[in-house]
Amino acid sequence: MKNIPVVMVIFGGSGDLAHRKLYPALFNLYEQGLIHDNFAIIGTARRPWSHEYLREQVSDAVHETHSEVNENDLAAFASHFYYQSHDVTNVEHYETLKNLAQELDDRYSAQGNRLFYLAMAPRFFEQIAQHINDQNLTSTGFNRIVVEKPFGRDLASAQELNEQITASFSEDDIFRIDHYLGKEMVQNILPLRLTNPLIKNIWNNVNIKNIQVTLAEHLGVEARGGYYETSGALRDMVQNHIFQIITLLAMPEPKDLDSKSIHAAKQELLSSLIIPDEKEIAQHFVRGQYLGSDMTFAYLQEPNVAPDSNTETFVAGEVKFKQGPLAEVPIYFRTGKEMREKKNRIDIVLKHMSNQYGQAHSNNITIIIDPDMQIFITINGKKITETGIRRENLGYLFSAAEQEKIPDGYERLLHDVFVNDSTNFTHWSELKSYWKFIDAIEAAWQRENKQGKKPEQYLPYRMGPKAANQIFDSATEHWIYE
Amino acid sequence: MKNIPVVMVIFGGSGDLAHRKLYPALFNLYEQGLIHDNFAIIGTARRPWSHEYLREQVSDAVHETHSEVNENDLAAFASHFYYQSHDVTNVEHYETLKNLAQELDDRYSAQGNRLFYLAMAPRFFEQIAQHINDQNLTSTGFNRIVVEKPFGRDLASAQELNEQITASFSEDDIFRIDHYLGKEMVQNILPLRLTNPLIKNIWNNVNIKNIQVTLAEHLGVEARGGYYETSGALRDMVQNHIFQIITLLAMPEPKDLDSKSIHAAKQELLSSLIIPDEKEIAQHFVRGQYLGSDMTFAYLQEPNVAPDSNTETFVAGEVKFKQGPLAEVPIYFRTGKEMREKKNRIDIVLKHMSNQYGQAHSNNITIIIDPDMQIFITINGKKITETGIRRENLGYLFSAAEQEKIPDGYERLLHDVFVNDSTNFTHWSELKSYWKFIDAIEAAWQRENKQGKKPEQYLPYRMGPKAANQIFDSATEHWIYE
Repeated sequence: MKNIPVVMVIFGGSGDLAHRKLYPALFNLYEQGLIHDNFAIIGTARRPWSHEYLREQVSDAVHETHSEVNENDLAAFASHFYYQSHDVTNVEHYETLKNLAQELDDRYSAQGNRLFYLAMAPRFFEQIAQHINDQNLTSTGFNRIVVEKPFGRDLASAQELNEQITASFSEDDIFRIDHYLGKEMVQNILPLRLTNPLIKNIWNNVNIKNIQVTLAEHLGVEARGGYYETSGALRDMVQNHIFQIITLLAMPEPKDLDSKSIHAAKQELLSSLIIPDEKEIAQHFVRGQYLGSDMTFAYLQEPNVAPDSNTETFVAGEVKFKQGPLAEVPIYFRTGKEMREKKNRIDIVLKHMSNQYGQAHSNNITIIIDPDMQIFITINGKKITETGIRRENLGYLFSAAEQEKIPDGYERLLHDVFVNDSTNFTHWSELKSYWKFIDAIEAAWQRENKQGKKPEQYLPYRMGPKAANQIFDSATEHWIYE
Repeated sequence: MKNIPVVMVIFGGSGDLAHRKLYPALFNLYEQGLIHDNFAIIGTARRPWSHEYLREQVSDAVHETHSEVNENDLAAFASHFYYQSHDVTNVEHYETLKNLAQELDDRYSAQGNRLFYLAMAPRFFEQIAQHINDQNLTSTGFNRIVVEKPFGRDLASAQELNEQITASFSEDDIFRIDHYLGKEMVQNILPLRLTNPLIKNIWNNVNIKNIQVTLAEHLGVEARGGYYETSGALRDMVQNHIFQIITLLAMPEPKDLDSKSIHAAKQELLSSLIIPDEKEIAQHFVRGQYLGSDMTFAYLQEPNVAPDSNTETFVAGEVKFKQGPLAEVPIYFRTGKEMREKKNRIDIVLKHMSNQYGQAHSNNITIIIDPDMQIFITINGKKITETGIRRENLGYLFSAAEQEKIPDGYERLLHDVFVNDSTNFTHWSELKSYWKFIDAIEAAWQRENKQGKKPEQYLPYRMGPKAANQIFDSATEHWIYE
């Protein structure tokens, strides 16, 4: 791997994301030689840490995520880290940061390359972007910025944030990260669609009846009720992860596999995204809130949650496109907290086919994204002891050895940032389409709130509210994963 | 199940097939009530057995094949058996047989139904058929005849035999048995093709590159060298089993699933069977003979085998049709003795598809018939740690419990004879097509023999002669099962 010279600035260097994800991922990339001699990483946050303390933290973070570590390598790696105590509102702090970056650039021959990583609470994004511009933190080499989710909380605020960022960065240098796009089975969607005649032949609205995307979480909001109140499941999961998965499923075939071709195909699809009207939203969307149990709080009793909150911890809905291979095919989704088990999966349901046996189940293709990676295809075969048709599941479960080899999404996506490949990041035009859709749903729910309508309540550790079983276009549809 | 009244006559009642297959299968059908009070079975053979001795033999045969037996049921079942010492050339013996059948018909209220089962050496078939006619053994109810393979040794002799049989039986009453058509996975071919959009969509000559049928035996000819010298692999395996499997794979969709529709579709296909010319046979057909090892005889050293025999113990070849869903698609087959392991399987190889990844393996659908039953589909997915494409096998292996439930082919096919369902038997018109093809190959080999050309020699317990890897239409084809 090429050794990429760079000074990287992580805003939120003392935070949870940096500790759990970024530092271990960076170490792996270091071990592979992608960053090696010519890099420095500045962690910034408000706490008054020393360089040494940050390096200890980095070292701890690597140990916590690796069963075996080469200690010499880790010490060498950690020596590239610097800490800068930083108040995001303080102009002088940006000046200090700029000088430190320049000093490290000289020391490590980083060739004027800068990478800014916004890993803080989203309310600071705009301010940081503005100061990067005002205090001129960009340099003479490449200048890239990675922005964590959420990118805005509606189309208007996203637009505002985007304007701040584009003052210093061109669209090609903005990496809006969605770690679902780093997941093995999400990255597998296009290869599965494009390289298999068996699958490619049925990937159209003649053969596919519907697609079902389920991102089920087992945990509740835990200590994050305060943040969650500003988000809800729709903004937290649908606007980004679910929409990116749906886009990969429904997009036309890209001409090529480079970033430009992929984003062009996505944009072509999203220009035909159907924004549902109020009636359609009432029919095909359900929001829910989990109830409590003997052992667990109801959402409304969680710390930092308003007792009359309308924030949804579950949402199910439907997405359709006017064009593309799956034009007019309903794509159903649901996501929620405190569901029966953690399970992220995609079910592609083929239409029933009339046949000489007079009966047969639909063929399904299922892609399990988490926690185990798996592909299976449900086909019909003859019953063993009588005539008639039964289902058979042809499955491929990734072995433990294979699963172990799979790099974390953050490692993959950081790699892509270093090598300037924005294929698996969210383009601004995609984000805009997603927010338009989300805004329509939010607006409908706001109207419902004013009429005193509340989210549907659901029992914890089941599959969400019962109403979610009635969002389908036709009576012959139901959730495959029940 | 309906209780079918019948007097059944088994020619070859002391033989191996009756003992290993027919008696156990009949007992199972008895336990299911298909034959119950109103049946009698006459075993005939030359040996001077008593009724009681036959009943002991039947009882032994059932014990040998069943881990648990209800002894009361078995005793009651065995009491329906009668032995008649019989010389197939002796007119008087047929008179005796006729009288015994009538007597038992009266005793068991068999309603004049007769079922004749030819389970003897094929050289007697014609004679027996002639005497059934001359001595008028048929009766006033239904009259059916089951004929074991081989049905003739070429088209001319098959035609002769067929004429003898049709003197007393109409085509609808002749059940030419091919026990491969009773196998679970062979019976699964049509359901798989017809009820799965995933498979049906690619079942055509646009998507399928070739099909490969392998019936590999691990054993040599053992004590049956004498019989085998009159047959060879082509007559023993290709003319019946392999051709029936190929027919199920390549036939157009039947209008319905009844016997008439199935046979009509098979005939439609077979009317377009391409008979290869001498040049094509030289190119696409290989015959082989196994060599010996430290532990085993070469075929030419086996007992009752001529030391200069040209009889093939292995054959590989190609079948094509002018019409049907797989028109012009090469269907390769091979079968042989002393191959690496017993394995009967079908590989359906899809064409490579150009795609954006620039590479990808073909998709294959594999149906394992024996010894384990299995379906798997090979699809492409992304490589885990790099970009690029790798293969994944999505498999369904029938569990031990499922495999145990599957009735033996003979039980299924005897059931079908009793209920007059000839779907899974060979129609005369099919047999004629098969023999025409076989005769063309045999004739070409006879010419080769005259030129002093011998079968290719092959090492025992490998995959046959190397020349079998060169029978393909194009250099991009090869055996999937190597």
